[in-house]
Amino acid sequence: MLRTVWFEDGKVKLIDQTKLPQQEIIAQYDDYKEVARAIVDMEVRGAPAIGVTAALGIALGICKLVSLENLKKDFLTITETFAKTRPTAVNLFWAINRMRAVFEKEVNSDISHIKQSLLDEALKIAEEDILINQSIGNYGAKLLRDGETVLTHCNAGALATVAYGTALGVIRAAIAEGKNIKVIADETRPLLQGARLTCWELEKDGIDVTLITDSMAGYLMKEKKIDKVIVGADRIAANGDTANKIGTYSVAVLAKANNIPFYIAAPISTIDLSINDGSKIPIEQRNADEVRFIDGLLVAPKDVKVKNPAFDVTENELISGIITEKGVARAPYRQSIKKITGG
Amino acid sequence: MLRTVWFEDGKVKLIDQTKLPQQEIIAQYDDYKEVARAIVDMEVRGAPAIGVTAALGIALGICKLVSLENLKKDFLTITETFAKTRPTAVNLFWAINRMRAVFEKEVNSDISHIKQSLLDEALKIAEEDILINQSIGNYGAKLLRDGETVLTHCNAGALATVAYGTALGVIRAAIAEGKNIKVIADETRPLLQGARLTCWELEKDGIDVTLITDSMAGYLMKEKKIDKVIVGADRIAANGDTANKIGTYSVAVLAKANNIPFYIAAPISTIDLSINDGSKIPIEQRNADEVRFIDGLLVAPKDVKVKNPAFDVTENELISGIITEKGVARAPYRQSIKKITGG
Repeated sequence: MLRTVWFEDGKVKLIDQTKLPQQEIIAQYDDYKEVARAIVDMEVRGAPAIGVTAALGIALGICKLVSLENLKKDFLTITETFAKTRPTAVNLFWAINRMRAVFEKEVNSDISHIKQSLLDEALKIAEEDILINQSIGNYGAKLLRDGETVLTHCNAGALATVAYGTALGVIRAAIAEGKNIKVIADETRPLLQGARLTCWELEKDGIDVTLITDSMAGYLMKEKKIDKVIVGADRIAANGDTANKIGTYSVAVLAKANNIPFYIAAPISTIDLSINDGSKIPIEQRNADEVRFIDGLLVAPKDVKVKNPAFDVTENELISGIITEKGVARAPYRQSIKKITGG
Repeated sequence: MLRTVWFEDGKVKLIDQTKLPQQEIIAQYDDYKEVARAIVDMEVRGAPAIGVTAALGIALGICKLVSLENLKKDFLTITETFAKTRPTAVNLFWAINRMRAVFEKEVNSDISHIKQSLLDEALKIAEEDILINQSIGNYGAKLLRDGETVLTHCNAGALATVAYGTALGVIRAAIAEGKNIKVIADETRPLLQGARLTCWELEKDGIDVTLITDSMAGYLMKEKKIDKVIVGADRIAANGDTANKIGTYSVAVLAKANNIPFYIAAPISTIDLSINDGSKIPIEQRNADEVRFIDGLLVAPKDVKVKNPAFDVTENELISGIITEKGVARAPYRQSIKKITGG
């Protein structure tokens, strides 16, 4: 099984996703600051993968400490470094909170025990992620019929998680059940995660995938070439409003206009009950050159003004269901989300 | 004024739009086959510009004939070469028909008169195009208020016409009236006409333009950053259904969902009364490598399956008005189009 991020030989190792599909390079970091930078630079991306990578990075940071005089302060510095990497994906903060809870519980133990406890927790978060994705896949697979074609946006696959994927985990589970499922992948400008990552990992698994530009999704829906839409999520508010990669809102509006079911697939750690609705979710604005350039190639006048929001919010009324590891939440979402999160 | 295509020194000259914005190169052709190839390769594109270029190319082809033994056959060969270049933009066939009408009228004249008549007609089509665009601009400018921001898709500017533009002509006319108008340009994958051409020509004119990826238009509409949408057209059916660059339909659906007026700006030559509704408009499917590559740079697994429709159809109920040189047609379109075309 394709694995995105792991801990080995005292290092955090990850597939450098900025190099795919041309090069399959394993980046290896023994400094937590480099792990944080890798998240900022999107060598690793995808809400669940960001959470796991931050947990492993925090464990790495603590394990490498030589002086333990300022342990509490160092823990704070390390976790704050990760908290500043990406503002939208809530799984990041969820993972940091899990690491903090272990730290606070063990803070008076001897240092080797603290180090081991933090590493164990990070590894547990990683292993849980795989099981969660398989469970999301099993619930989601029931929503797909043999012969259907699914549109997905960005990459909510193995590469966005530790392994298996959320939206693509649903595809994998449906295929494992013996269903014939085809995928249409939005290329997902500006960073082309659909073209570079989704196509790559689906082809690797022998899954039928067709690449389109983001502007073609509406046309194909109207032509009845798309039966379902499944995407991931970076943060889900208490009412079901969902932040995901820029362009997701457009896909959802087009799906509704064409009577095509639109599903979110995400772990419960993506749900942020402290956020009442989508308007409160912080939206990361990224560098203008991500739009002006593609892989170093200038595609516009070099000083042209640019907007580059990394995410948008899809309102709950556009969402047919939120597929989680505990089942599929449906409208009215405030109640179903409360139930599914045990709130 | 920026001029896209013209006839000079016995040659058809045009700005090679595949090289913009990095290089401003004037391509010069004295063989009509090269002019036809330039249309296929999109060195010149945009429905009105394609029509004018074909007319100039036909005049060039006839002017260069040395033997006139098979004049009728040669004329047919030349016009058929142009008819095969791009299937969707109807202005191409409209221009060919105008050239054919002159040829049939003059076919029994002496040869130098035939040559001159065809060249005169092509030059007339070109000059008319500029006046038509200015008239479209004047009608359209009335629809824009001071301080508004207009989203446009692809390039319906000076570069899509002989000069001035259709959708961008409306912007230019509104600014000439003293209104402060800002433009947001969809980059328009796969061939990036928005990023490469619209941004370039608006910056050249000192017009405020901001570049976004196609996936960001919906987000900005919801954030109330867009007041109006104006785009061009490649073919308009008798009921107002409009074929335009792929992604236009998506923009129209998003505009409707966000209560934003969505206008088409196009000359009457873009209207095809022989087509009853949009479902009958032929949609050009282009090479898969336009999606897999960006300016020669591979952005996906190299053999990934691709769909690459060059256009889509926006149904009349999504269109707030069609701005022509004879005024603005509004719903019900079958009647208003009949009236405006004098049908």
